[in-house]
Amino acid sequence: MADNKKMVEQITPMDEDFAKWYTDIVKKAELIEYTSVKGCMVIRPYGYAIWENMQKILDGMFKETGHENVCMPMFIPESLLQKEKDHVEGFAPEVAWVTHGGSEKLEERLCVRPTSETLFCEHYANIVQSYRDLPKLYNQWVSVVRWEKTTRPFLRSREFLWQEGHTIHATAKEAIEETERMLDVYADFCENTLAMPVIKGQKTESDKFAGAVSTYAIEALMHDGKALQAGTSHYFGDGFAKAFDIQFSDKENKKAYPHQTSWGVSTRLIGGIIMTHGDDNGLVLPPKIAPIQVALIPVAQHKPGVLDACGALFARLKKQFRVKLDDSDNSPGWKFAEYEMKGVPLRLEMGPRDIENNQCVLVTRHNREKTVVSLDHIETAIEEKLQQVHDGLYQKALQNRERRTYVCTTLDAITKTLQEKGDGFVKAMWCGDAACEEKVKEETGVGSRCISLTDETVSDQCVCCGRPAKKLVYWGKAY
Amino acid sequence: MADNKKMVEQITPMDEDFAKWYTDIVKKAELIEYTSVKGCMVIRPYGYAIWENMQKILDGMFKETGHENVCMPMFIPESLLQKEKDHVEGFAPEVAWVTHGGSEKLEERLCVRPTSETLFCEHYANIVQSYRDLPKLYNQWVSVVRWEKTTRPFLRSREFLWQEGHTIHATAKEAIEETERMLDVYADFCENTLAMPVIKGQKTESDKFAGAVSTYAIEALMHDGKALQAGTSHYFGDGFAKAFDIQFSDKENKKAYPHQTSWGVSTRLIGGIIMTHGDDNGLVLPPKIAPIQVALIPVAQHKPGVLDACGALFARLKKQFRVKLDDSDNSPGWKFAEYEMKGVPLRLEMGPRDIENNQCVLVTRHNREKTVVSLDHIETAIEEKLQQVHDGLYQKALQNRERRTYVCTTLDAITKTLQEKGDGFVKAMWCGDAACEEKVKEETGVGSRCISLTDETVSDQCVCCGRPAKKLVYWGKAY
Repeated sequence: MADNKKMVEQITPMDEDFAKWYTDIVKKAELIEYTSVKGCMVIRPYGYAIWENMQKILDGMFKETGHENVCMPMFIPESLLQKEKDHVEGFAPEVAWVTHGGSEKLEERLCVRPTSETLFCEHYANIVQSYRDLPKLYNQWVSVVRWEKTTRPFLRSREFLWQEGHTIHATAKEAIEETERMLDVYADFCENTLAMPVIKGQKTESDKFAGAVSTYAIEALMHDGKALQAGTSHYFGDGFAKAFDIQFSDKENKKAYPHQTSWGVSTRLIGGIIMTHGDDNGLVLPPKIAPIQVALIPVAQHKPGVLDACGALFARLKKQFRVKLDDSDNSPGWKFAEYEMKGVPLRLEMGPRDIENNQCVLVTRHNREKTVVSLDHIETAIEEKLQQVHDGLYQKALQNRERRTYVCTTLDAITKTLQEKGDGFVKAMWCGDAACEEKVKEETGVGSRCISLTDETVSDQCVCCGRPAKKLVYWGKAY
Repeated sequence: MADNKKMVEQITPMDEDFAKWYTDIVKKAELIEYTSVKGCMVIRPYGYAIWENMQKILDGMFKETGHENVCMPMFIPESLLQKEKDHVEGFAPEVAWVTHGGSEKLEERLCVRPTSETLFCEHYANIVQSYRDLPKLYNQWVSVVRWEKTTRPFLRSREFLWQEGHTIHATAKEAIEETERMLDVYADFCENTLAMPVIKGQKTESDKFAGAVSTYAIEALMHDGKALQAGTSHYFGDGFAKAFDIQFSDKENKKAYPHQTSWGVSTRLIGGIIMTHGDDNGLVLPPKIAPIQVALIPVAQHKPGVLDACGALFARLKKQFRVKLDDSDNSPGWKFAEYEMKGVPLRLEMGPRDIENNQCVLVTRHNREKTVVSLDHIETAIEEKLQQVHDGLYQKALQNRERRTYVCTTLDAITKTLQEKGDGFVKAMWCGDAACEEKVKEETGVGSRCISLTDETVSDQCVCCGRPAKKLVYWGKAY
């Protein structure tokens, strides 16, 4: 217990300093390490294993919806980046420029991709001739670079890992359906894999992706009441196709411009998991992406038979679960704290008395619920327990979001509510005018997160100007 | 047949122009597409699927041997790159430099990683304190950049995909064992997954990795008699540890320098497959990494029942194999040529008479062997056939290598043999003197590929100077 206490004390409590609590976890759960490369990080084995598990599931979802993986160059020539006006305006201020190769100055400088629309467009122009070539449903798993001023592990770093889907279609209708489909895939993944409830919505004009006709996003609410944009899906219309002169012959053999989309999620989702599920004892991982689902801890392991029995159970469980047997000479208390810090969903304890009784003890990470379970049906018990943990995490996160979601009909009410109850989502109507959006932010401190996709309304007047409003907007502070 | 012929004619025959044959295949099998980013390429879905299949198998082999995946930044600050003298000398002339972030000039320029030893060393210095922290067995799947003057798809490009393993150990013995272990893993992978026979050997001093004590490599012989370095494994001793001040407390609580390794294979292996197995009809893929293992082609598909029967067979086979049903309205001849071009190991044809007889026809890609097979045991038949294809490819490649491996004991013999028989491996003894190595290259045109790891000898005198020699060297021209 002394060890246990010592370890737990190392994390700053969430209520004391949320930002410090966050960075304590990413370091002490060994997710990342800092480097001398400013704004970039090492993703350590435990952090990377989380990403690998996410990748595997998402990649399966992309392939099921007909997408193929490709790999584009990491560099974009300056002239290529400049082809679509809005796009270059949005990204040029934050790209890293390669100017020299070896000792020679390059004739044209290259940026390290901040996103790859321009490269995909150049490629489409080469390979798309006829309607028979459409759609192309592509994705790539790569890292991208954006020269951010302030950085935080996973949430905002100069280099981050992501996937970027890029698709091209014969018609606007198909492209819009794709944009919506992938938003649904992301929401499904966040809720059913990461146990993280999300709001699906549309970004306002001022918040759109550079070069998009419309941008959709999923928004999650963190422990501290701030919103995290967890994934985006963009519809481009034929703007990029015109800028890059991508044309195809349609069924009537007439030239037409195709319609495009792109969509992405990143290692930012790991930050989302930390701030959705974590607590003052460390990380709490949803079972479906946890690198270790069950930590098997022998109790009184020096007593005869304990290590043998634990070893046999380990061999049995690892066929079905990601399980780790910790038979090191650290104390059980130290081990309990260690796997709590690392957010392992289930702890399995087994000592001499358990062995005698053909049983073991399962302890859930998120609510420390202890259950004594017979070894006869241990696999079923673990399976059920992992599902319960997933459901429990989701419900807890949903309750937190609901508790922190406020309906307001005036600017004063927004300010007052946030002061009284703390940060959260504010649901309020909006007339659609950018000036009102700006004024809400100036006067209350919360910006538009997204326009609701449902037809829910909470009033018929704009929260700002009082004019008629049909759009329900989720407002909040954002990461 | 007209279609078929048309398509085959599009590839330049190997004997006419080997380099053109190669680039024809990478383009027409849709493995890559060129871009406006000089020296970089798009890896298209079919090419990337080959890489994904390789990754999956190799990653499993790395994990089985205890390695964990991590992810380092893609940038290396110039001062970090310069810490190990030999390393920076080797790599600085061929790195891409980032000098600006957004509109600001960087205080210190960053290179895009050509390899990541320096980043791993900086990380080790942060996380290794005690012998209990050792070994660390890490790997990462990333792309690296080397500013090459002349480039060729997969074989030499400015950006390429690879894995780089980096490990750190308490003792030299453990690190040397690791270096050898990973060389064996690579050889195993090349032979048993890619059906590509390789020679395991050690690089001479002049050919070592920049900063290594010793470099081991696997070398394969291509169709044209040139050698391809297919993978390398380096032992660093404690040189990097000293340069980066990585120390640990050993069991006696004394400070000691750890010993390191690194090892890598890249998308170059795809080039190796093309030039080992390909023929004048296109790509020939080893079954274990082929994105499509079986191409199911309906014959007379307009006849009643054919498409239904093929659809049912497809549903049955896809449970066990990577199978593609091509029910497009292209002619069977066109389809045959298409899947030959793409190197699909097995073609399955099924028409009305086959359906009547509860059978289908299997045709192997590499030798066009036709077999009529009952549908009752079709899975077993395909499984056996794929194994036969693998074995057949391996034997064919091995025979090619043996046919093109020459034993020589004088420089004149080397020159004459190569003139008469064409390029290949020359097995000849070497005294170990760098001047002799240089002279062999100058006078005969072949360089040292690797020093044999076996104790085979073909003479007791150096092929160059006639002095006593114990080392058998494989000499050849290289990609």
